[in-house]
Amino acid sequence: SSATDTIRATLFPGDGIGPEIAESVKQVFRTAEVPIEWEEHYVGDQVDPRTQSFLTWESLESVRKNRVGLKGPMATPIGKGHRSLNLTLRKELNLYANVRPCYSLPGYKTRYDDVNLITIRENTEGEYSGLEHQVVRGVVESLKIITRQASLRVAEYAFHYAKTHGRERVSAIHKANIMQKTDGLFLKCCREVAEKYPEITYEEVVIDNCCMMLVKNPALFDVLVMPNLYGDIISDLCAGLIGGLGLTPSCNIGEGGIALAEAVHGSAPDIAGKNMANPTALLLSSVSMLRHLNLHDKADRIQEAILSTIAEGKYRTADLGGTSTTTDFTKAICDHL
Amino acid sequence: SSATDTIRATLFPGDGIGPEIAESVKQVFRTAEVPIEWEEHYVGDQVDPRTQSFLTWESLESVRKNRVGLKGPMATPIGKGHRSLNLTLRKELNLYANVRPCYSLPGYKTRYDDVNLITIRENTEGEYSGLEHQVVRGVVESLKIITRQASLRVAEYAFHYAKTHGRERVSAIHKANIMQKTDGLFLKCCREVAEKYPEITYEEVVIDNCCMMLVKNPALFDVLVMPNLYGDIISDLCAGLIGGLGLTPSCNIGEGGIALAEAVHGSAPDIAGKNMANPTALLLSSVSMLRHLNLHDKADRIQEAILSTIAEGKYRTADLGGTSTTTDFTKAICDHL
Ligand SMILES: CC(C)[C@H](C(=O)O)[C@@H](O)C(=O)O
Ligand SMILES: CC(C)[C@H](C(=O)O)[C@@H](O)C(=O)O
Repeated sequence: SSATDTIRATLFPGDGIGPEIAESVKQVFRTAEVPIEWEEHYVGDQVDPRTQSFLTWESLESVRKNRVGLKGPMATPIGKGHRSLNLTLRKELNLYANVRPCYSLPGYKTRYDDVNLITIRENTEGEYSGLEHQVVRGVVESLKIITRQASLRVAEYAFHYAKTHGRERVSAIHKANIMQKTDGLFLKCCREVAEKYPEITYEEVVIDNCCMMLVKNPALFDVLVMPNLYGDIISDLCAGLIGGLGLTPSCNIGEGGIALAEAVHGSAPDIAGKNMANPTALLLSSVSMLRHLNLHDKADRIQEAILSTIAEGKYRTADLGGTSTTTDFTKAICDHL
Repeated sequence: SSATDTIRATLFPGDGIGPEIAESVKQVFRTAEVPIEWEEHYVGDQVDPRTQSFLTWESLESVRKNRVGLKGPMATPIGKGHRSLNLTLRKELNLYANVRPCYSLPGYKTRYDDVNLITIRENTEGEYSGLEHQVVRGVVESLKIITRQASLRVAEYAFHYAKTHGRERVSAIHKANIMQKTDGLFLKCCREVAEKYPEITYEEVVIDNCCMMLVKNPALFDVLVMPNLYGDIISDLCAGLIGGLGLTPSCNIGEGGIALAEAVHGSAPDIAGKNMANPTALLLSSVSMLRHLNLHDKADRIQEAILSTIAEGKYRTADLGGTSTTTDFTKAICDHL
């Protein structure tokens, strides 16, 4: 393929098992002849004053330039005077929507076999404002901020996503019966956007009731859109329905079309370097990235190969009850391609 | 039984299906010869200025005097200038802990058969402060308040509950990695109390991870204690695991030993008056009330009769897939006594 066909993408292998599962993605992409050239960046070993975190300025510049990237798990080093790596990425790259497709994996049995939903989480404000203080001794408060701009932006993304992905319904999740002003504003924005998408059914579901319905009958849901903390909670709940964070892809969408796909599970330092890690979440995240780039053929082929390998059940990593190594599992996927 | 043996308890039958399911409790208590005399109070049809809600002052006085009560569902009338009935009760009676035992019902099949946990929710502060305002157009904020006093109080209740109910572990649920000051204070208080209960294992679980673990393997949990909103969410999630709010008891604990047990499901106006409602949640809540009064023999007998009736499956209301009326189901329970 000619140089102009090649897309440059930033790769953060991350820590712990990150490099091993990133290697798996690279190998699958090579086998599938995905026209992507990776620009690899590692987390630094000291705080970069320009990012106030262990992320280097160059790595952020790389994502800004390429507009697309893939990220493995990153453990934030413990200490003072720097920001969490995940939060820094969200803030610096203005990653306003976190999108997580969540579907039952054929052949991998959990208590649910009928999950097929997408959670879309506002990723920049709400309870994550970082604004907290002590009022008097023994009384502390934290501020939840909801803005019209960020709410419209994520609602617009959710409805656009629903429309372009053949989805029929968007549910806005809230607690506006208690937080009438903040969650009320969020809902107001969702309603405004909903009016522009008459072909998509719109509903509002209170978060407590939503969680109850999700565990009783997840098939009731299609696309869910919600403020930051509810998204944090519900996206993990949904991941649990289909087997956990090791199996669920995630993609962060930023202003100006930036997309940073990521595996949201931990860096699992206990099994790092042992060729035991399950690369599925990062692989499926890379598929999300390919879809964002409109490389649907490659995305379909790779997704199909991953799902078939898991469904056949011959090669599974330890977390799924198997005994395969990361490299064996990866090879099995490549053989499917 | 002599007059001194009789305990006076307040009964709020509530709206919708409330009176029917309250009738069921009265009948079961009569059959089991529970020495309780009910003082019935209904929601008023206008705002009582002394409570700023449709709850009458007299009804609150009744609970204050009796120190024990049972409450059916109450739909807050729509309109301005008054407070939600549930929130008014919590506030006026200082009901600081909401306790919900949640266990798989033998014979009633859901996706889970191994649930046996207790959620204990701080019920007075957190995200329910009601403090919200618009900062500028399009930017609103709400305040989450955490106090040392309320956190210690609910933590103390949780550990004491664990110890006196043969429970082994208390998990504090939080998001202190994001809300370091508010949830951080909550955890600090839990840790302080934990030190006084060396026989109880103490752990801290981040709320998103908690929800994922709950849907994957609820048997991992024993007693959970948490701030208000997390308790709202997680208690409903747990109810969903065992079949829904129609099956789960709830009891609110107030300062000075007040206990107001309640069915937390809705008032189901669509089936009100049709003799179709399932009284299980209110019945099991009344059992919680009896336990609070140390009437454990009566509590055991009634709980056993309810669970056996459901387990046998001959008499089940429509919500559980059966065709029994409320009165038939109640009669079946009485026959078990
Ligand atoms: C690690 C933590 C700060 C983060 C969050 O709360 O957003 C994580 O739970 C996530 O969902 O990415
Ligand atoms: C109705 C609502 C205000 C209430 C709450 O959020 O506390 C309900 O969900 C509950 O759990 O009792």
